[in-house]
Amino acid sequence: MRRLREVGEHPWLARLVPRLGVARGRVIVAAGDDAAAVRPGRRPLLLTVDALVEGTHFRRGWLPPIALGRRAFAVNASDLAAMGGVPRWVLLAVEAPPRTPVAELDAVVRGVATAARGAGARLVGGNLTRGPHLSVTVTLLGEAAGPIVTRAGGRPGDMLFVTGALGASGLAVQRLSVGRRARLPEVPSRLRAGSRLAPIAHAMIDVSDGLLQDLEHLCRASGVGAEVELARVPVAAACRAALAERAPAFAATAGEDYELLVAVPARRAAGLAGRSLGCRITRIGRLVTGRAIRLVDARGRRVRLGRHGYDHYR
Amino acid sequence: MRRLREVGEHPWLARLVPRLGVARGRVIVAAGDDAAAVRPGRRPLLLTVDALVEGTHFRRGWLPPIALGRRAFAVNASDLAAMGGVPRWVLLAVEAPPRTPVAELDAVVRGVATAARGAGARLVGGNLTRGPHLSVTVTLLGEAAGPIVTRAGGRPGDMLFVTGALGASGLAVQRLSVGRRARLPEVPSRLRAGSRLAPIAHAMIDVSDGLLQDLEHLCRASGVGAEVELARVPVAAACRAALAERAPAFAATAGEDYELLVAVPARRAAGLAGRSLGCRITRIGRLVTGRAIRLVDARGRRVRLGRHGYDHYR
Repeated sequence: MRRLREVGEHPWLARLVPRLGVARGRVIVAAGDDAAAVRPGRRPLLLTVDALVEGTHFRRGWLPPIALGRRAFAVNASDLAAMGGVPRWVLLAVEAPPRTPVAELDAVVRGVATAARGAGARLVGGNLTRGPHLSVTVTLLGEAAGPIVTRAGGRPGDMLFVTGALGASGLAVQRLSVGRRARLPEVPSRLRAGSRLAPIAHAMIDVSDGLLQDLEHLCRASGVGAEVELARVPVAAACRAALAERAPAFAATAGEDYELLVAVPARRAAGLAGRSLGCRITRIGRLVTGRAIRLVDARGRRVRLGRHGYDHYR
Repeated sequence: MRRLREVGEHPWLARLVPRLGVARGRVIVAAGDDAAAVRPGRRPLLLTVDALVEGTHFRRGWLPPIALGRRAFAVNASDLAAMGGVPRWVLLAVEAPPRTPVAELDAVVRGVATAARGAGARLVGGNLTRGPHLSVTVTLLGEAAGPIVTRAGGRPGDMLFVTGALGASGLAVQRLSVGRRARLPEVPSRLRAGSRLAPIAHAMIDVSDGLLQDLEHLCRASGVGAEVELARVPVAAACRAALAERAPAFAATAGEDYELLVAVPARRAAGLAGRSLGCRITRIGRLVTGRAIRLVDARGRRVRLGRHGYDHYR
C-alpha cells in the first residue's frame, strides 16, 4: 500500500489533475493551475483555495493571529495575482481546538477581513469547526480585468522574470522551525504586478514552493524547458547576509516567497520597465525547447542542487 | 481569557457575523446564512464552505473514503438547497497526514468529483496540505434558477415544514461515537426540494445542528418565534425503533439530518402537495410573534428539552 509520504504531493497532484478533466463549457481553466476560472456570466471568475495549518505552515508564536489571518488571505491573493486577477469575495473555513482563546480567533478573522478589504475584496462567509489544531482555509474568488494568464502558455525563447527578492521567508521559516528567533516577513502583494504583467505574459505562476520547483510546474504545463542563471536570482538582503555564497541556491529553492515568476516573449521584455509594477522585476533566464531545467553559473557552467523546492510529503 | 469552549460556536458566530457587514453592492446575502450570494454578473452566485474533520465529524472506519468524499460534497449541497440553489463548481481542500494511503485519498477525491457530477457540478480545483489528521473542506459555488431564500424572511403565521425524517444520522453518530456498530446514512439530496420550495418559501434553512437549534437560527434571523408540535416531527424508522418514546425529542435535537426546514405562508401551504419534491414533507408547527420557541405535545402542553442541538464547543 503506497502512502502519501512515499508518493509526494506534486507527483500525486500531477497524476490526479488530468483525471479531473480539461477546460470546457463554462470551465475556462480546470484544476492544475494557480486558480481555476469559470464563467458564471459574461465575465470569467477566478477561484482558488489555500490553507495554513498549524504544525505545517506555522507554529504558535511564529506570528500573531492577525498576521496569520492576513497571511491566509495573502497566499490566496498571490494565486490570483499569478493569473492576472483581482480579489473580490472571500470564504473563511477555520478549524480550532476548544482551548483557543476567543480573542485569538477574532484576530484571525479580522486579519482576513482587513486584508481582503485592503485588496478590494470582502469576506462574505465561512465555517467554524472543532479540530485538534488551528487551521485556516481561505477560498478566494476574483475577477480579471484583462487576459487570464495560466502556467501553460510559455514558449521557447520567452524571457523568464521574477518579481521582488527571494529567500527571506524561507530563511525565517527554517530558523523558526529549529526554535531560533526570526520574523516571518509579510507576504508581498503582487496584485498590481500581476494585472500589469498579464497583458504581455505568456505564462505566470506564483513562487510558493521554491523558484525552481514552481518553474518546473510552469515548464511542464507549457511543454518547454528552461535555463536559469543562478547568479541572476534576486536574493533578499537578509538571506544574503545570513548565507553569503550559499544564498542564491537557498533563495532559488526555499519557497514561501509569493513572488511572481513570469515568461514574457523577448520582444515585449523591453517594455517591462515602463509598467510600474510596484516592485522590482529581474530577468533570471529563459525558456528553451525540451523538458530539462538547466541551472547555470555566471560562466554558463551547469550547477546541480539537491532539491528544487518544497513538497508537503517528501 | 475566554476560550472557545466557554463561549460556544453559535454565540461566537452570532457576535461575529454582524461585524462582517450587511448585504450591499454586489453582495446580495452576506455572512450568516446557509450560503452567501454575490453578483459577479447579471445572475447571482451562491457560495458556501463546509469541512468534515477526522475526530470531529467522523472517525476512521465510520465510512469508506469514497463515502466521505460524497458526504463532503453533500453537506455543502444541502446549504445550497436551503437557498434554492443548484451546485455548479467545487473546490476541494484536503489536509492529510503523510501516512495516508494514496488509494484512500484518491477515493475521497473520486467521491467528491462523482457526487458533484451527479448534481450537475464540477470539481475545478483545490489544495492538498500536510496535517495531523484527515480533513476535507469543500467550497461550493452554485446558481439559483429562481428566487434566493434566506433564513430571514419568516413571518408570524407561516407554517413550518420539514423534509424527510429526522434522527437516523444522529443515532448512528451517537452509536459510532461510543464504539458501537452502525451505518451512517448517506446525506439526502434535497436540491430538487429546495428549488421547488424556493418560489413559495418565506425562509429556509438546512437541518444540520438539530431541528430546534436550526429553527432558532431561522427565528433569530427572521425576528419571530415559533411553536413546534413534538409529536408531528417526522422520526426516522431506525430512530423510532431504537428509542421508542424518546425518539421524537432525540430526532428534534440530534442533527446531521441535512433535511430542509422551511417557513411557508399559510395560503401557499396547500400547494405544497403538488410540487413533487422528491421526498416527504411534514408540517411541524408555525411561526409566531415574539422570540420564544415553544415546543408542545399533542395536547398543546409545553415540553422542555435539555438541549436544542449541536454546538462544536459546548
